[in-house]
Amino acid sequence: MSIFDEDTAVERLDEESWAGKVTSRWNVGSVPNGGYVLSMAGRALTQALAHPEPLTVNAFFLAKTEIGDARLLVESMRTGNKISFGSARLVQGEQEKMRVTAAYTDLGALEGPEYVESGPPDAPGPEHCIPADMLQVEFSKRFDIRYLPAYSGLLEGERMDRAEFVAWSRFRDGREPDALSLLLFADAFPPALFSRFGVTGWVPTVELTVQVRRRPVPGYLLCRFRSRYLTDGLVEEDGEIWDSGFNLVALSRQLAKFRIPETGRGGL
Amino acid sequence: MSIFDEDTAVERLDEESWAGKVTSRWNVGSVPNGGYVLSMAGRALTQALAHPEPLTVNAFFLAKTEIGDARLLVESMRTGNKISFGSARLVQGEQEKMRVTAAYTDLGALEGPEYVESGPPDAPGPEHCIPADMLQVEFSKRFDIRYLPAYSGLLEGERMDRAEFVAWSRFRDGREPDALSLLLFADAFPPALFSRFGVTGWVPTVELTVQVRRRPVPGYLLCRFRSRYLTDGLVEEDGEIWDSGFNLVALSRQLAKFRIPETGRGGL
Repeated sequence: MSIFDEDTAVERLDEESWAGKVTSRWNVGSVPNGGYVLSMAGRALTQALAHPEPLTVNAFFLAKTEIGDARLLVESMRTGNKISFGSARLVQGEQEKMRVTAAYTDLGALEGPEYVESGPPDAPGPEHCIPADMLQVEFSKRFDIRYLPAYSGLLEGERMDRAEFVAWSRFRDGREPDALSLLLFADAFPPALFSRFGVTGWVPTVELTVQVRRRPVPGYLLCRFRSRYLTDGLVEEDGEIWDSGFNLVALSRQLAKFRIPETGRGGL
Repeated sequence: MSIFDEDTAVERLDEESWAGKVTSRWNVGSVPNGGYVLSMAGRALTQALAHPEPLTVNAFFLAKTEIGDARLLVESMRTGNKISFGSARLVQGEQEKMRVTAAYTDLGALEGPEYVESGPPDAPGPEHCIPADMLQVEFSKRFDIRYLPAYSGLLEGERMDRAEFVAWSRFRDGREPDALSLLLFADAFPPALFSRFGVTGWVPTVELTVQVRRRPVPGYLLCRFRSRYLTDGLVEEDGEIWDSGFNLVALSRQLAKFRIPETGRGGL
């Protein structure tokens, strides 16, 4: 079993609650990554709802998750023919840490008009890109990330002229991407602001939404993240994720706080 | 009292519930606009939470709202120093129609680093733009919308080369914009897809998120909406809203279904 599947596994306790275990293998510093705990909640929803795959998932991060036991309290909100709605709360002790609201569907059954105005980034294959071994970060050990050559200066401490980041990524243990794991990949890169300014602060997520458009085919995912508006210490990060066949598989957006540690100065 | 304030008014029933009345004055066809009912829930949250203004608000639309009485069932999830989290359900009869999750704050107290990579659209003042009197739609009677000259061909049935729409807008009765009303303005324009394809279908919202960045100054709002990825009958619509001082006041994104009525063909 892959590390992702092992660490997001949940066990049903009763009609509405599941048990999970938050491991330290997805930590950034001392805090479990938000996309990781979101994936655990997403797995409970997969088991609870009538449809198997996330279509659009929103999460509010109320408090830091801790390593150890977690309960997922799931509510089925509405079951339709092609879409089911549900909510999940991740609770540790008596404290709610994350609130998730979601629409689930069967991605394989979707059909309808297509019109695509933007394409994927112009990217050479992963074998022509530059591996980023940031292995001092526990979270980064889980991934095989390949920076596009145009962004490889970031590995040497250079800066981009914009807050943007493009890389290929897949699980280091070879686990192939699926719809559920896109909830993790949508939050699995350094903040785009760091491309412009360096690692100048910490960027905790207030809220994250992931739209899943398609089941990824096997292989690396091509991921582009961008921030355009940092105002009063608040910033959005917009993500686009393409599979190895250059199909759009997910869009994401989060609102994050940008804090500079020396001063603690920040919007919230 | 303005029509917006009158039609989003809520009365507290007890600790956790409010009563509201959905009017037909915000209908598009026979259905109340999503941003309108979201604003009603947003007002209940304003009264329930420790902080007065929306910072980021997510809504899932579970079923069509109907004209008439509604209950708003509000839950305070967490109260922090600078931010409060809450949830609201809009219920009619026994059916939940909309689920809202939100972070509220005091926008006037925000401070922190600024970095803006994109500017507002290059726009002449509203007095140099073209009024759009789509008064056959009840919803449109509530607004004074001015198309930018570059988009005015749309009023004559022309098409753009992209799915984008830019216009100034304010309430027709002169009510000035505030943070709460941005939840409405984020869903108050024709779908951006119509700019490219004409009014070829209906575009019901699955889920909408609005990030509020700043209290708007009085005057018109400059609103840009864009869709880039219509896949399997599903489309995102990204909005940017600027105030009359060209300050960014909100970002929005929704996931919508695109359905062509002749065939009913669509993703969901």
